Amino acid sequence: MRKVVKKLVNRKRSPFFTLRPLFAKSIMRRFVADKAKTLINRSRTTCSSSFPPPIITSTSVLQRLTSSSSSSSQSTAVLRFLSTSSDSMASDYSSTPVTLNNVNPKVLKCEYAVRGEIVNLAQKLQQDLKENPGSHPFDEILYCNIGNPQSLAQQPITFFREVLALCDHPLILDKSETQGLFSADSIERAFQILDQIPGRATGAYSHSQGIKGLRDTIASGIEARDGFPADPNDIFLTDGASPAVHMMMQLLIGSENDGILCPIPQYPLYSASIALHGGTLVPYYLDEETGWGLEVSELENQLKTAKSKGINVRALAVINPGNPTGQVLAEANQREIVEFCKKEGLVLLADEVYQENVYVPEKQFHSFKKVARSMGFGEKDISLVSFQSVSKGFYGECGKRGGYMEVTGFSPEIREQIYKVASVNLCSNISGQILASLVMSPPKVGDESYESFAAEKEGILSSLARRAKTLEDAFSNLEGVTCNKAEGAMYLFPRINLPDKAIKAAEEAKIAPDAFYARHLLNATGIVVVPGSGFGQRPGTWHFRCTILPQEEKIPAIVSRLTEFHKLFMDEFRG
Amino acid sequence: MRKVVKKLVNRKRSPFFTLRPLFAKSIMRRFVADKAKTLINRSRTTCSSSFPPPIITSTSVLQRLTSSSSSSSQSTAVLRFLSTSSDSMASDYSSTPVTLNNVNPKVLKCEYAVRGEIVNLAQKLQQDLKENPGSHPFDEILYCNIGNPQSLAQQPITFFREVLALCDHPLILDKSETQGLFSADSIERAFQILDQIPGRATGAYSHSQGIKGLRDTIASGIEARDGFPADPNDIFLTDGASPAVHMMMQLLIGSENDGILCPIPQYPLYSASIALHGGTLVPYYLDEETGWGLEVSELENQLKTAKSKGINVRALAVINPGNPTGQVLAEANQREIVEFCKKEGLVLLADEVYQENVYVPEKQFHSFKKVARSMGFGEKDISLVSFQSVSKGFYGECGKRGGYMEVTGFSPEIREQIYKVASVNLCSNISGQILASLVMSPPKVGDESYESFAAEKEGILSSLARRAKTLEDAFSNLEGVTCNKAEGAMYLFPRINLPDKAIKAAEEAKIAPDAFYARHLLNATGIVVVPGSGFGQRPGTWHFRCTILPQEEKIPAIVSRLTEFHKLFMDEFRG
Repeated sequence: MRKVVKKLVNRKRSPFFTLRPLFAKSIMRRFVADKAKTLINRSRTTCSSSFPPPIITSTSVLQRLTSSSSSSSQSTAVLRFLSTSSDSMASDYSSTPVTLNNVNPKVLKCEYAVRGEIVNLAQKLQQDLKENPGSHPFDEILYCNIGNPQSLAQQPITFFREVLALCDHPLILDKSETQGLFSADSIERAFQILDQIPGRATGAYSHSQGIKGLRDTIASGIEARDGFPADPNDIFLTDGASPAVHMMMQLLIGSENDGILCPIPQYPLYSASIALHGGTLVPYYLDEETGWGLEVSELENQLKTAKSKGINVRALAVINPGNPTGQVLAEANQREIVEFCKKEGLVLLADEVYQENVYVPEKQFHSFKKVARSMGFGEKDISLVSFQSVSKGFYGECGKRGGYMEVTGFSPEIREQIYKVASVNLCSNISGQILASLVMSPPKVGDESYESFAAEKEGILSSLARRAKTLEDAFSNLEGVTCNKAEGAMYLFPRINLPDKAIKAAEEAKIAPDAFYARHLLNATGIVVVPGSGFGQRPGTWHFRCTILPQEEKIPAIVSRLTEFHKLFMDEFRG
Repeated sequence: MRKVVKKLVNRKRSPFFTLRPLFAKSIMRRFVADKAKTLINRSRTTCSSSFPPPIITSTSVLQRLTSSSSSSSQSTAVLRFLSTSSDSMASDYSSTPVTLNNVNPKVLKCEYAVRGEIVNLAQKLQQDLKENPGSHPFDEILYCNIGNPQSLAQQPITFFREVLALCDHPLILDKSETQGLFSADSIERAFQILDQIPGRATGAYSHSQGIKGLRDTIASGIEARDGFPADPNDIFLTDGASPAVHMMMQLLIGSENDGILCPIPQYPLYSASIALHGGTLVPYYLDEETGWGLEVSELENQLKTAKSKGINVRALAVINPGNPTGQVLAEANQREIVEFCKKEGLVLLADEVYQENVYVPEKQFHSFKKVARSMGFGEKDISLVSFQSVSKGFYGECGKRGGYMEVTGFSPEIREQIYKVASVNLCSNISGQILASLVMSPPKVGDESYESFAAEKEGILSSLARRAKTLEDAFSNLEGVTCNKAEGAMYLFPRINLPDKAIKAAEEAKIAPDAFYARHLLNATGIVVVPGSGFGQRPGTWHFRCTILPQEEKIPAIVSRLTEFHKLFMDEFRG
């Protein structure tokens, strides 16, 4: 690492990243200190290069999906590193009642790498840059760890924000100045929405499933998308897709004998939620060789193995378009998956939050409900939950925490249970509910906002497609790196063939080799990616997830910087 | 029941409620049909008048807190009643995989009466009124079941909504028309808040604990309130207080051997959350005779009993001001509670969401943190979590789902676990975060909005105080009813001494006697209250919870209607 940064420091600077040699030493010292602390502080788990057996119980989900090392010991070490605390400080809490020995073990076992150790380190570096500009060989932290478009300067869709503002402060709807500030159709839409809310009360708890009128709009949007009926009573509005996934896991998981088939690699919400609810993650591996293909034979094998171990597999989770893998499923493949769930009596949990993020002309998004209905499976034939979110799409409104799940194929008795669990949290936030209705019913041709809306949408989507292609090419050109095509979603998940020397150095540092790479990358360039071990990967393979979201004008600098870093890293560890 | 409605129909009509005799029979028929279905459909649990032993495991929390009958069989029956389904329809779902036999049993055991059977019935009646105006002996449903002020026409605080609208659509901040529509200080505040958000991105996921600048503001507000330091790193912003309570329960409950001391009566979020996490609710009874007093001797007894049964009691939940009981704890009492938690090594979970709802001059809210610090207990001496919400107070912004918890007295290792669980859901909604900062830093003397803000606040709080007193007096004047004083919060929790004949009729209908009363009240008047059995109560006592939130001009009609109904009910069942 020391060598990598020194070499970077001495090279020609890219326009975007500025290296400051004087400060390079300080991060070196800090990084070495960090490594030392990691080594010293904890050795609760030992480094192991063996990969988990196919079935992973909640007692070890991410620890075992992580190909080596313990991420929990890592993150603890980082926390200590980040805080001003020392071991002696921790002992000051000896008279407080909650300790690692008596905290809920399911919480301890849960891992969530998207905001894990690397991100903590990034926040620390960001703070450093703020307090001591020039303290690191880069000017800013580039968060490519998380699909958070607006954090990387993507602007919100104007029409959506106009309507939200008017619903937040309806008193201005009738004022003349409002006409000058807002589009006519946003004003009209705000009136329509307010009329759908009992008493126009945007500050009241709604029905536990969300405001009925907004669910009507969403159901119409689903019908228009699929060409099959949708029932507003099937819609549960939620604070983003994550709480919806938790709700379904809560329903399905009663003990560690209940298993959920999850893709590997997977978005770690699934492993985290299964761990928190005490279930068993039954992995099925996506096939990297065929562009992260989903093979039904693999599902069958894993299901059979799970059953032979006494696991009662309840559901199949499918992420389409894929996260972190970016593939868009072919319709024929989806039909096989539906058949499989029907035959095996599994609930199909369809994570369809990237349904509007498809970047290649040869692929198209089809909802699993449309596919199932087109196969002739009706409401009572298959249990299917589709998750949607306002955080993704071209709008990327992550901070609004809006989303919904469409729940079909459950008996009234079970629906009652889902309703009850939704009720305990009262309702999701009304702005998020409104936004969920807007993304499913955007301006139409002829509306005042239509042209600017269409231009904003097209601008974002075409830029994302270009960024995806440029980054994909850049990763593919790196020594020892192969990169999937980003057909959809917001991520690339390149595979790195790390040299033995790097793997050995990582083992010595008690971190996963891909985390070792990601940490080096961050310290040298400010770019934050998530190690593949946070998502699960085939034994002995190493990846990282990088979003395609940095601003387009920054992409060339990122590519050159990344290329430069990678070359130096390989030079140092090629052995 | 038939008699009660008939008599009401024949009486002089109050200005607010309009009775329509022609339609009275139809609700009678429906009610009788409902009763019959309840009797026929299910007999999974039998009616029992025995009260639970002091310790209630999650396998039976609300079923056993309900003094008799089974609310799950009730609610299933009501669901069937409300839907168009019949038993034959349910069997159509025979090929779907999720059934009451294989759903997570913890979900089945969870109960949440605030949105339970009575509310389902109310929604059905509301739909009836919409489709067939005049189909019931009242014109509107009055939801007094839930603390949801804006659903009952309370207007939002203008300044708060101005700032939210501007943060939703910052493009208008620089426009000249905006000056005419928004107060100067709301514009200034919006700028300040946007400057606190990285990249001014109100559409981005924030830090998992919430935006740092907003947490700084909240910490300052806490300091100003308490006179003791508050650390922004202790603040976790959440989508209302409920998810925060869940998060702490998740941390503390590993198995049914982990117990949480909860008040009885309690807001059923606590019993629901403990059930969902598989823990044990250890009840302590508030003393109705002393205005719902919290006696430390009761805590000690219940703790001892729990320990003797092998329960590891982890925390004490205290709701202050009380829900549903409305009492405000005296500071001396709070000191005893803090001492008890310290001595017994319990986490103190302080539900302080009604901190701004105190209506009597002789009482004042003191946060438990202030009390603990004033006793000399510092950060490392006591583990204390304070829950706050934007849904309550005088602002009552339930639909915004904003809130926070202030977490003090946990070691860095445990803090890391809380942070991780928060991270799995990414962050709470940004509008809710902004609003949480606003309620903790409202306009100050000299700000343009100050006077109108102060007038709005005072108008709401003084009206609430008047409504509380009027309703309290009205309840107290009813035959066989005694009513606590609403010192704070938003509820009255009157006790009804039901005649034996009513209790017997309820047993025959297989519902709790207080649910029997509440259902009669709803069918006759449109007023929705929550039976005391949904909160827990001493064996053989019956209550209901009624909010103080209906519009002030409607209160006289409500009182006369309620009085009239009660008299007829007693006449029918006095025996």
